[in-house]
Amino acid sequence: MLNIGIIGAGRIGKVHLESISYHVKNATVKAVADPFMNDDTRAFIESFGVHNVYNDYHKILEDKSIDAVLVCSSTDTHAAISIEAIKAGKHVFCEKPVDHSVAKIQAVADTLAANPGIKFQVGFNRRFDHNFAAIRAAYDAGKIGEAHILKITSRDPEPPNPKYIAVSGGIFLDMTIHDFDMACFLTNSDVEELYVNSAVLVDPAIGEQGDVDTAIITMKMANGALAVIDNSRRAAYGYDQRAELFGSKGMVATSNDTLSSAVLSNADGVTGEKPLFFFLERYMASFSEEMRQFVNAVENDTEVPVGIHAGLQSVKIGLAAKKSVAEHRPVKLSEIC
Amino acid sequence: MLNIGIIGAGRIGKVHLESISYHVKNATVKAVADPFMNDDTRAFIESFGVHNVYNDYHKILEDKSIDAVLVCSSTDTHAAISIEAIKAGKHVFCEKPVDHSVAKIQAVADTLAANPGIKFQVGFNRRFDHNFAAIRAAYDAGKIGEAHILKITSRDPEPPNPKYIAVSGGIFLDMTIHDFDMACFLTNSDVEELYVNSAVLVDPAIGEQGDVDTAIITMKMANGALAVIDNSRRAAYGYDQRAELFGSKGMVATSNDTLSSAVLSNADGVTGEKPLFFFLERYMASFSEEMRQFVNAVENDTEVPVGIHAGLQSVKIGLAAKKSVAEHRPVKLSEIC
Amino acid sequence: MLNIGIIGAGRIGKVHLESISYHVKNATVKAVADPFMNDDTRAFIESFGVHNVYNDYHKILEDKSIDAVLVCSSTDTHAAISIEAIKAGKHVFCEKPVDHSVAKIQAVADTLAANPGIKFQVGFNRRFDHNFAAIRAAYDAGKIGEAHILKITSRDPEPPNPKYIAVSGGIFLDMTIHDFDMACFLTNSDVEELYVNSAVLVDPAIGEQGDVDTAIITMKMANGALAVIDNSRRAAYGYDQRAELFGSKGMVATSNDTLSSAVLSNADGVTGEKPLFFFLERYMASFSEEMRQFVNAVENDTEVPVGIHAGLQSVKIGLAAKKSVAEHRPVKLSEIC
Amino acid sequence: MLNIGIIGAGRIGKVHLESISYHVKNATVKAVADPFMNDDTRAFIESFGVHNVYNDYHKILEDKSIDAVLVCSSTDTHAAISIEAIKAGKHVFCEKPVDHSVAKIQAVADTLAANPGIKFQVGFNRRFDHNFAAIRAAYDAGKIGEAHILKITSRDPEPPNPKYIAVSGGIFLDMTIHDFDMACFLTNSDVEELYVNSAVLVDPAIGEQGDVDTAIITMKMANGALAVIDNSRRAAYGYDQRAELFGSKGMVATSNDTLSSAVLSNADGVTGEKPLFFFLERYMASFSEEMRQFVNAVENDTEVPVGIHAGLQSVKIGLAAKKSVAEHRPVKLSEIC
Repeated sequence: MLNIGIIGAGRIGKVHLESISYHVKNATVKAVADPFMNDDTRAFIESFGVHNVYNDYHKILEDKSIDAVLVCSSTDTHAAISIEAIKAGKHVFCEKPVDHSVAKIQAVADTLAANPGIKFQVGFNRRFDHNFAAIRAAYDAGKIGEAHILKITSRDPEPPNPKYIAVSGGIFLDMTIHDFDMACFLTNSDVEELYVNSAVLVDPAIGEQGDVDTAIITMKMANGALAVIDNSRRAAYGYDQRAELFGSKGMVATSNDTLSSAVLSNADGVTGEKPLFFFLERYMASFSEEMRQFVNAVENDTEVPVGIHAGLQSVKIGLAAKKSVAEHRPVKLSEIC
Repeated sequence: MLNIGIIGAGRIGKVHLESISYHVKNATVKAVADPFMNDDTRAFIESFGVHNVYNDYHKILEDKSIDAVLVCSSTDTHAAISIEAIKAGKHVFCEKPVDHSVAKIQAVADTLAANPGIKFQVGFNRRFDHNFAAIRAAYDAGKIGEAHILKITSRDPEPPNPKYIAVSGGIFLDMTIHDFDMACFLTNSDVEELYVNSAVLVDPAIGEQGDVDTAIITMKMANGALAVIDNSRRAAYGYDQRAELFGSKGMVATSNDTLSSAVLSNADGVTGEKPLFFFLERYMASFSEEMRQFVNAVENDTEVPVGIHAGLQSVKIGLAAKKSVAEHRPVKLSEIC
Repeated sequence: MLNIGIIGAGRIGKVHLESISYHVKNATVKAVADPFMNDDTRAFIESFGVHNVYNDYHKILEDKSIDAVLVCSSTDTHAAISIEAIKAGKHVFCEKPVDHSVAKIQAVADTLAANPGIKFQVGFNRRFDHNFAAIRAAYDAGKIGEAHILKITSRDPEPPNPKYIAVSGGIFLDMTIHDFDMACFLTNSDVEELYVNSAVLVDPAIGEQGDVDTAIITMKMANGALAVIDNSRRAAYGYDQRAELFGSKGMVATSNDTLSSAVLSNADGVTGEKPLFFFLERYMASFSEEMRQFVNAVENDTEVPVGIHAGLQSVKIGLAAKKSVAEHRPVKLSEIC
Repeated sequence: MLNIGIIGAGRIGKVHLESISYHVKNATVKAVADPFMNDDTRAFIESFGVHNVYNDYHKILEDKSIDAVLVCSSTDTHAAISIEAIKAGKHVFCEKPVDHSVAKIQAVADTLAANPGIKFQVGFNRRFDHNFAAIRAAYDAGKIGEAHILKITSRDPEPPNPKYIAVSGGIFLDMTIHDFDMACFLTNSDVEELYVNSAVLVDPAIGEQGDVDTAIITMKMANGALAVIDNSRRAAYGYDQRAELFGSKGMVATSNDTLSSAVLSNADGVTGEKPLFFFLERYMASFSEEMRQFVNAVENDTEVPVGIHAGLQSVKIGLAAKKSVAEHRPVKLSEIC
């Protein structure tokens, strides 16, 4: 049984608390810390039988009975807390992105290198989604041969508040970062070069923040495959999350999940349901699965499914995308450091 | 090159004229006869380069250069004209149903038995439809093993004029007869027994004519399979024509054809097109294909794909269905004679 | 917070224990009783924090702190235990079928009538399935107009052990009973008359037990709609659970659930996943939902979603189906008493 | 009735001969010319009742009874013959591409400007395909709002003979040119800038010819939309032809056509048919439709659906794509002249 402490009790921290309590047999949440802890949050946490509720996360790091921590605090604190936790001998699950700065992520990587017994997993939950995992499984099983073309469609149901844009790091570090990691996961390869074609088509206020809201990113993967991601900050029909991997022997593709398979045929046409709208609804099962696999990797001392390399790559790709937009040219990943 | 005469220049006679002219390489229409020939119809026929246009079909039977005739006249004349044509040495393609009377169809069968060189095909065009033919092909190829359950859904887009009901022979001889033949075709078996569950739900005027407009017919096939047909005289979304054959090793099923594969996703849902509405649009290619196969059977002296047995069976099943409704009990085909 | 006792710790009792613990916020399992309690089962129960584990269910009925019981024991004990529980003032959730005997179910109904404050729900979990519930919701919302034709396809992945057939009451009381209830639920109507067309096509050993393994049941519903169920004890491709409701304004239909939406296109065709194979996997969410709604009905003193009438109807329909097979004729529900 | 002469009796010339004969009511082929006319081709032509069969196309241009010509000769002769035909007062339907040289296409455009009564249509048949036309129709009807992202997938079933690569002008002028035109058609806009990400993944022999066989092309359209085309010279599952247009109010997408809708469910999965393999099979109806619309434009003196601008744009885009590969940078269309 693994004892876990959660640092950060916002939306995603609560999701992990519930996942571990209900869906991970061999782990228990022992403590939760959040500097902005309030009564509601405390009551929510206690309803899961967790009674060590703190403002200061150091209490978690100091608790010898705790084996692993989940870093679910704000992005700018991820790297520092992770480094502290590693040094305190805790295994770490860190939400994405690890940081917006390559140097800071590298510092985490260096700390890990100096503490080889510590497991460190990055929260790219979509890798554990039933659909995307099925694409990778088909690829690994040789069903499509060598990878030639990867296509990812990722469109949000609603744009974020333009005020949030500034602190988010922009669309590539906030939204597309999931798709960058997915591209690496599905092709089992790093990115070598990319080019971004982008525009402000959804909301001029996003443009005023210096960001874009619609983008097509093409990439050359290190293994020779080509890839393309298309993003929009607003799809009228909901959260659009699809991928398709085409190779020398065939193609494997996924479609969106819906609440039911019911289809209505009437004088207006043949109508099925829209995709699930909200990311927590769409990806809930993947949050449980990433937690199970993290816990298993720690318990069995096996490799974590999403390591620091993935955390570093995804941010480098995001920074390369920003550079491509700024300089209006293809950018090699090797230019980012 | 087969020379063909068409007897009856109504809707279906015109369809065959066009099919042969455009889609059957080794046949030519030489003459068309119709007692109600008018200027428009004559002009239509001549636009295909056919200049022997008659009121009296005997001129076709007397024309030694004509090898085969299509009997497309009103149902009550099918049997008599077919017998005349067979005796005149013509191969015959006869529209369905051959007749509403078992005795009259038997008379055609007897005439054929006495003229073994003559080919006789019944116009069950749906057997040549790409979807239904694919089900039978999968079955013949052993892909579903032994047939266990056949399901046919057959719903018209609009009910007929209630006045037409009286002369049509009722839903089972007019509409379901296609599905009865399809059941025999898809399971490659005759029917042994059936039971009808029916109602008047679409139009009370149909009930006033002594007919039903909604029905579920279950059947035991001679080869042991079970079958079920469901019919409605009115589907709000168009012409619904589906089938599904389930067996010991699997199932093969078809869906409706649409004008395009376009699917619109918006705030209302994910909407594809309705099924094709009109039977001529839906089944046009099957009319060409049945003609090609009839011509080939004559040219190569091979067995026709839909012989007099199918013509007889389908009407017997229709009569059994009427009896089942009248007597509110399962009826064996052997009771019909 | 509702305190619940579970009577019967077999497969379905364990499912409810887990559902309530993880997915029903306002209920707690306080005790579990099973005459065959063993160490494994006891350990499983205790892992959910339930420490009142008994052999004798009377201890549950005597516990004043327990508000409601789940009757998950063997079918032949359902009615007697339910009656005891009602008399002890407990709300009851009873697994299906309530009994194979109409008289015994009627005795439960009579006891309920004498104890009007008691809630009694029957375990027809499929009513709470996302797909089937969506059909009923579309119907209730008027989207298909009046119901004309209901089609249910229900095929098991594997036949039961032939030895089990004898105690199961046969296919209609064991397997089709779910579909009978579904027919009533989806059309919001009772059954008036039915006719069964059946055969032994899957396993001769089932026939030797006097049962059938393949069946088509057509029904006239009390509200005028026609319905058809097709059953097989073995579908090579897995658990096939579909329904389609056709009405005056349109049709709503559902397809099977799969593990993922991944589709592989290669030289062999375009291949998606098989339906989920195991009923617990397919219907797991419905077990939680029926529990939530039972608890809510008790807590809010509202009508339960599946009452004793549904329990009685479904068994009557099953007995009518057996009579139809035995007497080879349509049978009215009013004949069953 | 429009009298037509066909110049060039290769594969596509024969397709048009058959289309006009069978599917275009108000046009007749009067003559066919081909410098390589042989007995088989002559017999094929005469089987359609066309008896003016020439080696020298000038005989067609000199025939006063001929209203329009189809230029179906080799690409390098398209422009010169078109100019001759225009000057001879014939309306012209010219196969794509008009030429590989912008200057030569401009010469055709100039000749047309000097002969304003002449209709000139370019053979981009895919615009008339039922699926792609449905996307544009939905867009024109305002169903998706403003266009934001266009995605086109276009993959051939088999690569061409590497020897053919040299004369074809390369993948962008030979294969992608259809997709470039489709991008302009579906967004109803010209291209402003593009960037190509490409590779040799299918056949090294294609690379040895200086061409690529796999490509992702992203484009900025003049109306602000972003677009992406992905191409492969070889899809193991057949001819893959899909498009998806995403906009402010929704998305419209098409899937591939198949021979039938039959789906087989068995222990291996749920398998539908592969896309139609051969472009003539896939697009046959579009060839008839483009001919009908050309004939109608001439007969009614209305604008042709695909004019010289489309012919010029598509080649410019193809040349820009080649430049983007050569110079490894985004290229503006304004750079091509």
